[in-house]
This record gives sequence, C-alpha cells and structure tokens, in this order.
Amino acid sequence: MNEIGQRRASGIRSREAFIATTGRLLRRQGYSGTGLSEIVAASGAPKGSLYFHFPGGKEELAAVAMARAGDELRGAIVAILSSHDALGDALCALLDALAAGLEASDYADGCPIATVALEAATRSESVRVVAADAFDSWVSALRERMLAGGMARETADRRALLVLAAVEGALILARARRDLVPLRAVREELLELAG
Amino acid sequence: MNEIGQRRASGIRSREAFIATTGRLLRRQGYSGTGLSEIVAASGAPKGSLYFHFPGGKEELAAVAMARAGDELRGAIVAILSSHDALGDALCALLDALAAGLEASDYADGCPIATVALEAATRSESVRVVAADAFDSWVSALRERMLAGGMARETADRRALLVLAAVEGALILARARRDLVPLRAVREELLELAG
Repeated sequence: MNEIGQRRASGIRSREAFIATTGRLLRRQGYSGTGLSEIVAASGAPKGSLYFHFPGGKEELAAVAMARAGDELRGAIVAILSSHDALGDALCALLDALAAGLEASDYADGCPIATVALEAATRSESVRVVAADAFDSWVSALRERMLAGGMARETADRRALLVLAAVEGALILARARRDLVPLRAVREELLELAG
Repeated sequence: MNEIGQRRASGIRSREAFIATTGRLLRRQGYSGTGLSEIVAASGAPKGSLYFHFPGGKEELAAVAMARAGDELRGAIVAILSSHDALGDALCALLDALAAGLEASDYADGCPIATVALEAATRSESVRVVAADAFDSWVSALRERMLAGGMARETADRRALLVLAAVEGALILARARRDLVPLRAVREELLELAG
C-alpha cells in the first residue's frame, strides 16, 4: 500500500472507531451524559480527526452511530425471526437473545436507541428522526415476518407495534429492576398471543 | 402567622417548587441533561435553600422528585382503572389519557420515570431503585385490577407486566415518531387481549 492508501485506511479505521465507541456509550448512558472527550478517549482515534470525519460534531456522530446500531439490530432481528417456523418460537428466540445480552452486560446494554430517543427527542431533530427510522425498520421486520406467516395486514400492522413496544418496555423495566422477570413475562404473553 | 411560621411556610414552598420543577425537567430531558442551575432558575426558589432541603444535591433531589412522580401516576392509574367495569375499557381509558397528555405537551411528556431510568440505571443506585419501585407500584395497580376482575393470579402477574411494558414502549415510539399511532395500536391490541 502506498502512503495515500495507508492514510486512507487509517482514516477509515478512525471513523469506524468513533462510530462504534459512540454507539456503545450512547446505549449505556445516553446523549447528554456522553461527551466528545470521552468518545475520543475511549475510541483511541486521534482527536484531530473527529471534526474531519464529523463536521457536525456530537449531533452528527450520534446520528451516524444510531443509524448504524439500528441497521445492525434490524439484521439481527431478521435473522432470528427467520430461524424459526412458528411465529411464537421466533418471538421467544428474539426475547431470549435480548435477555442474554442484557444479563451478559450486567444490565447495561438494553435497546441501543431508546435512551437517546427519550432524552433527545425534544432537543435534536436529527437524532429524533434517526431514532424513529430505526424503530420503523424493526417494526417492518416484525410485520414482514407476520405477513409471511399468513397474518392479515391490518392485524400485522398493529401486532408488530405491540411486540416492539412490549420488548422496549420490558427492557426498561428489566434494567431498572436488574432482573429478567419482565422479559420472561413478555415472552410468555407473546408466545400465547402468537397462538 | 408569626415570623417563624412564615419562614416555615416559605421553606415548604421552596422545597415543593424544587421537587415539581425537577420532576418536570427530568421527564422531558433526563438526568444528565438537567443541571442544578437550571432547576433553581426554573423553580423560582432561592438558590441557597437547595442544599438546605436536599443535602445530597441533584441525586437526592432527583430521587425525591421521581418518587413523587411515581406516586402521582400510580394514583392516576388506580383512578382510571377503577372508573370502568370492563378491564378492556379501563385499559383503553389509560391509553387515551396518556395519549392526550403526550399530544398536549407536543410529544414532550411521556413516562415521568423511563428517561431517567434508562440513562441513570448504571450510574446512580438510588435513582435506579426509585425507578424500579415506581414501575413496581404501577404493575401492582394493574395486577390488582386484573385480580379484582377475576383473572387467575399467575396470568395477572404476567399480563400486568406485559401491559406496562407495552405502554412504556408505545410512549417511546410515539415520542420518536411524533404521532399517536403506536399508542392507538397498543390500545386496540390490549382491548382484544382483555377479551
């Protein structure tokens, strides 16, 4: 690789480090509680390159990191939902995966979008829109799975929203309680609802 | 009233103003985004009295304000749930009240506890415990209503958690989208579930 190629590779690494670090910090502590200096320190990337990659500063970086987290979780949701024939089993597998991640992180890693969505919804329009898009993409994944299983469109439109809402809410309750009881209760209820 | 009585009344007013202001700001913008100077300015109470009433500073004030908000919402939930004979109608009335509050505040006033619960769950043990207690008190109100309607205890234990989780999640989605579609979908689903 020549010098220009090496610089470009290093720039891509820095950009990716900023995005991954920001996503992790936002998920655990939210927008207001995450400072640019903390992001730079935790990323290990050169401080001077942050505004080169993200001229819009923290707001732009947060929007990119949240969009990335939303895409990744959508991919995971689609993969899990398609791994089981029965809708109920697929929803249980989704709840189990979220519960495992929450427990493994000592109740720190809930939804990667919800915390920032709640605190920044009235402050940053770009952050709000990215959050809404991420939620929509997950609802769509759930709805598509329900339609593929033969559910009527009107029911699927509502039920996909119920499932995502119940999952999001259960993650909040579980983080506050530091136990998996709410996720397990929602798992059983959704299994019953899926018939 | 003599001078000591007047001072005491003024002290109670200051304390109440700090609690109400903190509750309102935490609900809209979370813990990290709410500073003590903003609380003092918005409350109109004398700055010097804040540490007199709350020696533990922001963390103590937040815990007291969240406990107050939790009690108030529990009272509202109990009142709404007891105002309808059929469980489905009672749950619809709860969703309608939350939707009206969210819309009237231009999508700022969602759950008074969820935002702080998410961002401070890993930072402040006292805030986490107050949030968990508030959620528990709302789940209990829902469960008592279900038991009073003749639901089996095991089902009520799970269903009360499902209902609160779905409501909390729908409030997040609605705030991010700036519309009431998720609350209306959850309303219809819970009505159907209540039979």
